[in-house]
Amino acid sequence: MRLAELSERSGVSAATIKYYLREGLLPPGRQVNARTSEYDEEHLRRLRLVRAMIHIGRIPVATVREVLGHVDDDSLGHTIRLGAALWALPQVPEPDGGEEDEHLRGVREEVDSVLEQLGWTNALALRTISPSYRSLVVALAAFRRLGYGEGVELLTQYAETMHRWAVLDLDFMETHASEVEQVEVAVLGAVLFEPALLALHRLAQEEETTRRFGWAGGAS
Amino acid sequence: MRLAELSERSGVSAATIKYYLREGLLPPGRQVNARTSEYDEEHLRRLRLVRAMIHIGRIPVATVREVLGHVDDDSLGHTIRLGAALWALPQVPEPDGGEEDEHLRGVREEVDSVLEQLGWTNALALRTISPSYRSLVVALAAFRRLGYGEGVELLTQYAETMHRWAVLDLDFMETHASEVEQVEVAVLGAVLFEPALLALHRLAQEEETTRRFGWAGGAS
Repeated sequence: MRLAELSERSGVSAATIKYYLREGLLPPGRQVNARTSEYDEEHLRRLRLVRAMIHIGRIPVATVREVLGHVDDDSLGHTIRLGAALWALPQVPEPDGGEEDEHLRGVREEVDSVLEQLGWTNALALRTISPSYRSLVVALAAFRRLGYGEGVELLTQYAETMHRWAVLDLDFMETHASEVEQVEVAVLGAVLFEPALLALHRLAQEEETTRRFGWAGGAS
Repeated sequence: MRLAELSERSGVSAATIKYYLREGLLPPGRQVNARTSEYDEEHLRRLRLVRAMIHIGRIPVATVREVLGHVDDDSLGHTIRLGAALWALPQVPEPDGGEEDEHLRGVREEVDSVLEQLGWTNALALRTISPSYRSLVVALAAFRRLGYGEGVELLTQYAETMHRWAVLDLDFMETHASEVEQVEVAVLGAVLFEPALLALHRLAQEEETTRRFGWAGGAS
C-alpha cells in the first residue's frame, strides 16, 4: 500500500508517519520509484505499536527506539528478548534519595521470603537485575515509610492472582505465530492492557465506594 | 517539632519542606516566634503524602495542590470527596485524535454490557463522568484498533477479582479513623499500591516466561 493508504488504515497522519520513518521507528517501505514507496501489513502493525507507545503510553521517542531495537533483535533468546523489550519500557520511578534504609532492606527481605514461599525461583534468580522486582520493593518501602505496615503481607494473595494472569497473558501471547509478533504483543500488553486493568480497579473502587457511602455518604 | 526534626523524621530536606510550604502543599506550622514554627504529626503525614505523589507518582505540583484541595474539603460527601481526590490524579492519557470511531463505540457498548452483567450499577451510573470508565474504554479500544479482538471478553473475569480487591482496599481504608486520613490513604493506594501491583504482575510474567522458555529459550 502507499503512504496515503497506510495513513488512512492506521488513522495516523502522513506527516506523523514521515516523522516516524525519519526517526527510524518505522522501517522504510520498498522503494518503487524516486517518490513512492510501498508499505505492507507489517508496517501497519508496527505503526500501530509505535502509536500506542507514544500516544497512549506517552513513552519518549528515544525509549520507543530502544524497545523496538529489542523487539527486532532475533539474536536474543525468547526470554531475554521479551525481558529486554519490557525492561526498556519506563518503570516505576525510584523515590529520590533512593538510598538504602531500614524500610527498603526490610521490605526486600520480606519480598524474597514471599517469593520463596510462592516457589518463584526464576523471579528470585532475576531479582538483582529485574526492574520489576526493584519497582515492587521501592513502592512497598515507600508505603512502609509512610507508616503503613501492611502491603507485603497482602502480596502473597495478590501474587497468586498475578501468576494466574501471567499464565493467561503468555497463553495469549503464544497464539501469535512469530517471535517478533509475540514480543510486540507483550509490549502492547504492558502499554495498553495494564492501564486497562488499573482503570478497571479504579472503577471497581468507585462501585464499592458508592455502595458503602452512597452518593452523598458522610456529607456534613 | 521544629523544621529540623520534621526534615529528619521524613527524610525530606529542609529546603524542600520550605518549598512545599511556599507552594501551599503543606499547611504552615504554628508560629512560636518570628523565626520558628512548630509542626505536628499531621504535618509529617501530609509531607510524606506530598513526597509520595511528587517523587514516586511524578505528579506535577499543580495537580498535587488540586488533589490536596479535595482531600481537605470536608464539605463534600465521602464518596464525592474520594472520587474528586482520585479523579484529580493523572489518568490514562487519551489517544490523540481520541474522536469517536467504530472501535470506541463498540468497546463502550461491550463494557456497558459487562458492567450490567456484573451488577455494577453505580459504575454504570457514573460512566459519563468517570475518568476510570473513560480510560478503560480508551485503552481497550486502542487494543482493538491494533487488531486484537480480545480484551473485553477477559474483562468479566478480571472485573470480579478487581471487585474483591476493591473490597479489601476499602476495608483497609476504613481502618483509619478520620475521613481525611481515609482519603489520604486512598490517594496513596492509587499512587503507590497500584505501581506495586503492576510490578508484581510484571514479576509474575518474568517468572512464567522463564518457566516456559528457559533462560535462553528459543535462542537462535
